[in-house]
Amino acid sequence: MSLQKRVKTMSSDLKPFSKRTRQIKLGLMFQASGHHIASWLLPETDADCALDFKKYTSLAKTAERGLFDLIFEADSLSGERFTADTLPRTALGMRIEPMTCLTALAAVTEEIGLVCTATTTYDQPYFIARRFASLDLISGGRSGWNVVTSANASEGRNFGIEEQLPKAERYRRAREFVEVVRGLWGSWDEGSLLIDRERGLFYDPNGLHVLDHVGDFFSVRGPLTTYRSPQGEPLIVQAGASDEGRQLAAETADLVFAAHQSIESAREFYSDIKTRAEAVGRNPKHVLIMPGFGVMVAKSRQEALDNFGELQNLISPEVGVALLSRYLVWDLQDYDVDGPIPELPAGRNVPTRSAMLASTARAEGLSIRQLYQRIAGGRGHFQVIGSIADVADKMEEWFHDGAADGFNIIPQVFPSSLNEFVDLVVPELQRRGIFRTKYEGKTLREKLELPIPRKVSLRHRR
Amino acid sequence: MSLQKRVKTMSSDLKPFSKRTRQIKLGLMFQASGHHIASWLLPETDADCALDFKKYTSLAKTAERGLFDLIFEADSLSGERFTADTLPRTALGMRIEPMTCLTALAAVTEEIGLVCTATTTYDQPYFIARRFASLDLISGGRSGWNVVTSANASEGRNFGIEEQLPKAERYRRAREFVEVVRGLWGSWDEGSLLIDRERGLFYDPNGLHVLDHVGDFFSVRGPLTTYRSPQGEPLIVQAGASDEGRQLAAETADLVFAAHQSIESAREFYSDIKTRAEAVGRNPKHVLIMPGFGVMVAKSRQEALDNFGELQNLISPEVGVALLSRYLVWDLQDYDVDGPIPELPAGRNVPTRSAMLASTARAEGLSIRQLYQRIAGGRGHFQVIGSIADVADKMEEWFHDGAADGFNIIPQVFPSSLNEFVDLVVPELQRRGIFRTKYEGKTLREKLELPIPRKVSLRHRR
Repeated sequence: MSLQKRVKTMSSDLKPFSKRTRQIKLGLMFQASGHHIASWLLPETDADCALDFKKYTSLAKTAERGLFDLIFEADSLSGERFTADTLPRTALGMRIEPMTCLTALAAVTEEIGLVCTATTTYDQPYFIARRFASLDLISGGRSGWNVVTSANASEGRNFGIEEQLPKAERYRRAREFVEVVRGLWGSWDEGSLLIDRERGLFYDPNGLHVLDHVGDFFSVRGPLTTYRSPQGEPLIVQAGASDEGRQLAAETADLVFAAHQSIESAREFYSDIKTRAEAVGRNPKHVLIMPGFGVMVAKSRQEALDNFGELQNLISPEVGVALLSRYLVWDLQDYDVDGPIPELPAGRNVPTRSAMLASTARAEGLSIRQLYQRIAGGRGHFQVIGSIADVADKMEEWFHDGAADGFNIIPQVFPSSLNEFVDLVVPELQRRGIFRTKYEGKTLREKLELPIPRKVSLRHRR
Repeated sequence: MSLQKRVKTMSSDLKPFSKRTRQIKLGLMFQASGHHIASWLLPETDADCALDFKKYTSLAKTAERGLFDLIFEADSLSGERFTADTLPRTALGMRIEPMTCLTALAAVTEEIGLVCTATTTYDQPYFIARRFASLDLISGGRSGWNVVTSANASEGRNFGIEEQLPKAERYRRAREFVEVVRGLWGSWDEGSLLIDRERGLFYDPNGLHVLDHVGDFFSVRGPLTTYRSPQGEPLIVQAGASDEGRQLAAETADLVFAAHQSIESAREFYSDIKTRAEAVGRNPKHVLIMPGFGVMVAKSRQEALDNFGELQNLISPEVGVALLSRYLVWDLQDYDVDGPIPELPAGRNVPTRSAMLASTARAEGLSIRQLYQRIAGGRGHFQVIGSIADVADKMEEWFHDGAADGFNIIPQVFPSSLNEFVDLVVPELQRRGIFRTKYEGKTLREKLELPIPRKVSLRHRR
């Protein structure tokens, strides 16, 4: 079947969004051997699955068996952590580059969405536009770009940058970057690939648009050399928690990831993003909010707690303190591990979610050990360790009480925690009628019930 | 089997290079619907195979059936050709981005090498190093990077660059870029991935190296976040024909592509590159030279000529003149298509191989039409249109007479010309004992009998 015909078939055999019941969306957040810092120490873990594509593929297929909407890969553009004294002991951060990895995965999966991080600070819009458009085409419309502004100084040192741009500048650059990328994605109209041998027209020149962007940060002419995908264009994903991050998300994102320690904080964020989206003229239903959700489930609550406790006990204090130090951007090595969390000096470049966590923990009177244990698996995301009902109840509550449209699931150990989630929690969510029982729609937009966005306004050149 | 174990198995079950007979190496040069500008007009052609990953996969599998060493994808970072008046009529240049495409292909092929172009002028060494290292890991050691310096002004306009760097500067930047990339590829020693749960060491910190490069064009700290592949590092590939290009190739390349119109020119190039390589202390056997080789074969010479003639007649003069104008960087629209090739003004930024072709053609007294027909299929590469013996004889002559270590095969039409090459020419080369009858070695280096290169000298930090 030709590309054209397939595009048409895909868009037409689908129930209209309005006829479907609102259901939970599920992302799988991929990380090393599992999100728990000590996960690789368990002998049954796929310790090197972030470096072994065959193992990675098997996780992706499990996620498809569980009818997940997407896989999400975060990223870091620095390997400096490996040169620190203690983190060399862990599996964290050694990985196949996310875009490369998800692209290879596109060829061996059929349904699941493929979302990864790329930076607006060190990369170029023409590269990003072309690469994600290509992944979108290869995957039949399953890609998404998580836009990050790269605040980390150690990343800058791999790109000849000693001084980070001020945050406001980084976000101005990011906004223009996204506009250019979306403009390039509009290079080709739907239906402009003709392959008309009679008239000698491979494509319709009237369906071609030249961007000719000249802005504060970028001058990009276009058009793109890659044709439009079945879902129109890749998704824009955002995960910023600061004021600037929230505003960029509300204006540009199809999907927003977030980290919360409580449903109250998640509700505030949810309502804030939806309000901001409405304020800029968008339908708030078209900005989906998917907080991270750390899960360790077993048939009984006690079994889950025991399994998690076993993991927590595997963290050596050196690794735990180093992890927390990196998270808070402050070296805690010389403090008493069972003493209180010190007041940390202001003026450091600390991510919003880390600062929030530190102040909550201090208020609760946690020790350094207790705080590193809290982030050892969930990295500041909400966590449920418990029975099937414990997990499903929390998800249902968040989903129905204005805190989430779906969840980015954070398994503690690969493959076991993912298998358990798929085998135990997914059937329960289905039984409750809040999760799909089969995939509907081929593209990621169709699965997430997101429309093809309106075009960025462009000069029409021919 | 663990990654470590697989790496070890791969390197040990192989015959030493010295015991193998010298044999032809084969690359498949991928391009749109085939290299002939009119190929997409034949109804049986996979006209959109550069945009349809499933069709592309099927070509790659045919190449594996033909025991090819590698697939090569060139690239252009500009879509401006689509806005010209006549080239919109062709399939040329619309494509999935090459790196993305080959990465997806890595997941559905087992043996074939994956080589594509990436620019040293607009990209960053940390990105390139990481991406090719990742492809190398995913593919089990089958990747190669074709280093290009991007002279084209239309490419610059997608990166905010109006003025191209002078050629000498572009090559200075390219040389430093390659050095940094290779330095980053040396971040992890073989065997440094321990996964030692007893001692809590995921990797051996002594096997980790920090680059800390500070040069004229780049400051890059490292290390890379991606582990070493089974072939040590990706291949460096070069295709420059100028003095600067030849020197860079001799110093850095594992593999050199080239375009020649005659065996004399190919011999001169071959001997020049090998001599230059020896002069910088390299073993000339470790720089393989693979000229492009346009092929259209049939059971009889007349049948091949008829098929090729049919293709040539499908080129409309507007498309032919536009193609030639782009090739020579000079608008030929207002000249008589059956008149002589005009003397073109000096001082334009013309690729070496285009300038050579124009002067040869003028000397031969070709018309504009004859010259565009000559490049319509082979783009300035040598072409053989003929019987099985015609093709095999030429290949054997070039291979034995100091003109080539192998060939980058340039099929005129996909899939038919590739199928014909694999079904007709490959068995004949095997019968003559100058081509393999099965794959030996898993990695691309093993197939090409290239050693893992010595490390770029690096500071050892821990």
